[in-house]
Amino acid sequence: MKSDYPTPLATVDLVLLTLRDGVLSVALVRRDRPPFEGRLALPGGFVHVEEDEDLAATARRVLREKTGLVAPYLEQLYTFGGRNRDERGWSISVAYFALLPDIAPDPENGRAILEVDGLPHLPFDHSRIVEQAVARLRGKSSYSSLPVYLMPERFTLDDLQSVYERVLGQPLDRGSFRRQIDFQGFVEPVPGEFRRPEGGRGRPAQLYRLGAKRLKEFGRRMLA
Amino acid sequence: MKSDYPTPLATVDLVLLTLRDGVLSVALVRRDRPPFEGRLALPGGFVHVEEDEDLAATARRVLREKTGLVAPYLEQLYTFGGRNRDERGWSISVAYFALLPDIAPDPENGRAILEVDGLPHLPFDHSRIVEQAVARLRGKSSYSSLPVYLMPERFTLDDLQSVYERVLGQPLDRGSFRRQIDFQGFVEPVPGEFRRPEGGRGRPAQLYRLGAKRLKEFGRRMLA
Repeated sequence: MKSDYPTPLATVDLVLLTLRDGVLSVALVRRDRPPFEGRLALPGGFVHVEEDEDLAATARRVLREKTGLVAPYLEQLYTFGGRNRDERGWSISVAYFALLPDIAPDPENGRAILEVDGLPHLPFDHSRIVEQAVARLRGKSSYSSLPVYLMPERFTLDDLQSVYERVLGQPLDRGSFRRQIDFQGFVEPVPGEFRRPEGGRGRPAQLYRLGAKRLKEFGRRMLA
Repeated sequence: MKSDYPTPLATVDLVLLTLRDGVLSVALVRRDRPPFEGRLALPGGFVHVEEDEDLAATARRVLREKTGLVAPYLEQLYTFGGRNRDERGWSISVAYFALLPDIAPDPENGRAILEVDGLPHLPFDHSRIVEQAVARLRGKSSYSSLPVYLMPERFTLDDLQSVYERVLGQPLDRGSFRRQIDFQGFVEPVPGEFRRPEGGRGRPAQLYRLGAKRLKEFGRRMLA
């Protein structure tokens, strides 16, 4: 509807987190219009009231239109809204974050993948939005299976531990990590599939895949 | 600004949670205009772009205007948005939840306090918003000091345990509860202040107040 009163702009912004060469990174796209034309920023777009059923639909549409990607895990992060965050006027941005196993940079379409630590200052309040997404991912990863959405189809338990460590930013004890994973049961061995260690020596490692219930909360934090 | 494109309505809704006679309850106000005129619903209002600095300011203004209350703890809960949640058009509601030690019903101003368990169906998607606020409160209370915002100025440790139990909906072990509280240190004894047990017999109980750092996350869940 068109309101008789001035209403805020309503947008959705996406924080796409991935592991790029094992480093927690975020996907940014080059803006093709003002403000901040030509600068790298979070992919985002306006709510289209004729087209979008709800906010999650807006998020999926913006993801598709701006990146061509589909995210198996998309969570509403937080809503940023105020007078000064966008020069076009009072604006609301409902931020979502997504986890993707690996996103390649795509310079032709203006997509860059940057490490989240040491990110340059981004347009609008996008730096703050990225910070909050990383904090949410780290917080939830300490007591849930959330990092599995960063895993490829097949992986070893050492791969999984390494992804947890990279997300949490700290080493984990191998024994307690394996006990926790066993106990929680969100991954399952793939019968008959193993991977030889690099160099070809040593015992082949069992390959795993995600179980039916992949997102699980633990009763306590998984910390070193 | 006035947009050239149709933009969603932008509102803030408030879930005010309190303990009323020891039972987790929510404050509702009678709507004074359509839709759902005369029905009890969450206090809410439109973002006023001329007046409100940001969404938190909208939340505080709506709280003041609709209830006359000030909330020491106000947290953004989740944002609900879509085509079908309000007959007036595509609408976004940024929901906040607040904790208050005790809110009295105020029938003259249309305010009722209802228990969250067994709440009647509320207008719009307000039932779902209340459910989500209660889930957030319960989730966070299991590993943080959040319930302290439901405490009066002075309380005994048994009072505090009882509030935790009512919020979590389950009994806690007295010994481990006290060890956890001691360890976390978010409350402090008030020197020289005690309360006699009802009936006047038995040892007076030490009174406590909130410490300087009242909101603390624990490393593990506080469960029975």
